[in-house]
Amino acid sequence: MIEIREFHTPSSGIFFRARRRLLSERTPFQKMEVYETDSHGRVLLLDGLVQTTEKDEFFYHEMLVHPAMMSHPGPNDVLIIGGGDGGALREVLRYPVESAVLAEIDVRVIEVCRQRFPGLAASFKDRRVEIAIEDGSRYVCETDRRFDIIVVDSSDPVGPSAILHQKSFFMALKKCLRPGGAIAAQAGAPLYHLEHLRAKRRFLKGLFKSAFYYLGPVPTYPGGQWCYAFLSDRIDPLRALTRRPPKKLKFYNRDIHRAAFALPEFLKDRGRRQAGGLRGRSA
Amino acid sequence: MIEIREFHTPSSGIFFRARRRLLSERTPFQKMEVYETDSHGRVLLLDGLVQTTEKDEFFYHEMLVHPAMMSHPGPNDVLIIGGGDGGALREVLRYPVESAVLAEIDVRVIEVCRQRFPGLAASFKDRRVEIAIEDGSRYVCETDRRFDIIVVDSSDPVGPSAILHQKSFFMALKKCLRPGGAIAAQAGAPLYHLEHLRAKRRFLKGLFKSAFYYLGPVPTYPGGQWCYAFLSDRIDPLRALTRRPPKKLKFYNRDIHRAAFALPEFLKDRGRRQAGGLRGRSA
Repeated sequence: MIEIREFHTPSSGIFFRARRRLLSERTPFQKMEVYETDSHGRVLLLDGLVQTTEKDEFFYHEMLVHPAMMSHPGPNDVLIIGGGDGGALREVLRYPVESAVLAEIDVRVIEVCRQRFPGLAASFKDRRVEIAIEDGSRYVCETDRRFDIIVVDSSDPVGPSAILHQKSFFMALKKCLRPGGAIAAQAGAPLYHLEHLRAKRRFLKGLFKSAFYYLGPVPTYPGGQWCYAFLSDRIDPLRALTRRPPKKLKFYNRDIHRAAFALPEFLKDRGRRQAGGLRGRSA
Repeated sequence: MIEIREFHTPSSGIFFRARRRLLSERTPFQKMEVYETDSHGRVLLLDGLVQTTEKDEFFYHEMLVHPAMMSHPGPNDVLIIGGGDGGALREVLRYPVESAVLAEIDVRVIEVCRQRFPGLAASFKDRRVEIAIEDGSRYVCETDRRFDIIVVDSSDPVGPSAILHQKSFFMALKKCLRPGGAIAAQAGAPLYHLEHLRAKRRFLKGLFKSAFYYLGPVPTYPGGQWCYAFLSDRIDPLRALTRRPPKKLKFYNRDIHRAAFALPEFLKDRGRRQAGGLRGRSA
């Protein structure tokens, strides 16, 4: 047995015992490892941090994608930044979209996940998918295309994803949205990235008329609960819920959608009464 | 540094590195350990399982107590089964109750927590508190007292708490409720105790007209999210929310209350349309 550990603080974290290591390589961008575990199925680590496990990836991918997709009346063109494991793409393709562009900086993540995580990466075979092997922040600055939904499936704000958590990136994203479009972005761990989340809220407030944090559980991420941002100039995600969700989801439904936007006391925006603020529902 | 581990499956779990062990003893009922950690403050383990950490206990204790207390129009007399660490008691005493009885089987848990966890166990000094050192299941069978709210703060369904997860215990609890009263009971980990939760739902359905599971995060419990049961013959916890919550809570508010009753697809009761069923809100 090989023991995998992820430290969530300098002195605590989670561990898995793996039957075997299926892959370990340094790509030009990061260290990538894949393990076979009894408890969580296959586990993908990037730079030593758990990105995806077969057992619990549905929590993250469903909550990253469906709140935005369900809030839009009819998304045709979707952009995913990052998301090289294919999980967010799989969820997007449950809708009758016309195109789904995935801009991933590291082609090896896609190649390895196609081989090792078929439950996630089978989505790459869909003919609606276009892959751009490119820095996501460069892609959004250079493209002339416009999208109904943009999903930011970045890793944490260290390493190659650092830029995907900055104000300049969200300004560029906004230019790529069609009128009436929306962005969903993973934002971090409420318990461990609280100051980061508060700082990010300050600049997102200025950029979008409708800006909300929302939450969902992800058992293998630090603290077990994850924070996402919903950003739009026109859509209120708590009022826009008219369709039925796709079938066969394991986590998301419309009750969960509404519930996810309730923020605990420690995460509330104390300045939320300002017009245009990123806010939870009023208490 | 001492390493503490809790296995959540036979091959995965969480770890803490502790600066020192403050206590390790075998009581007549269980093994009790207290550690000092940098990451989570003091940590209490019973039979090797994390019961409470100073850093994240508020998630559990607020969500165990406030949904029931806030759903009742004016709880005067409250019973807590278990809860020897004093955390549930602290939350109950935020309301103007007349009495709070705590029935804890193991006096050493109370004694140790009074000494080692003052943030939790200072509540024992309150003059409204009565302590019964007794098996909780025996207490509810033998007492003639009746309560507005009963909080079941048991440990997991192994060891001394096993009986606190059985149908006969909930039947006895029901007899101790005043008309219009309600029970809140910790129920387990959705991800790890799913079959147990489904089985329990089947018998709770038959016992209470209003029976709901609800959820909240607890970072150091298995899977990071915890399930609780709300049980009453008269109160609908989604309609009964009229007062303001106590001040200075870190997690709970009225948005969180409503949101907690939204159940993910994998935990929904497929028979929820039956009258009197334990159910999530309709999807």
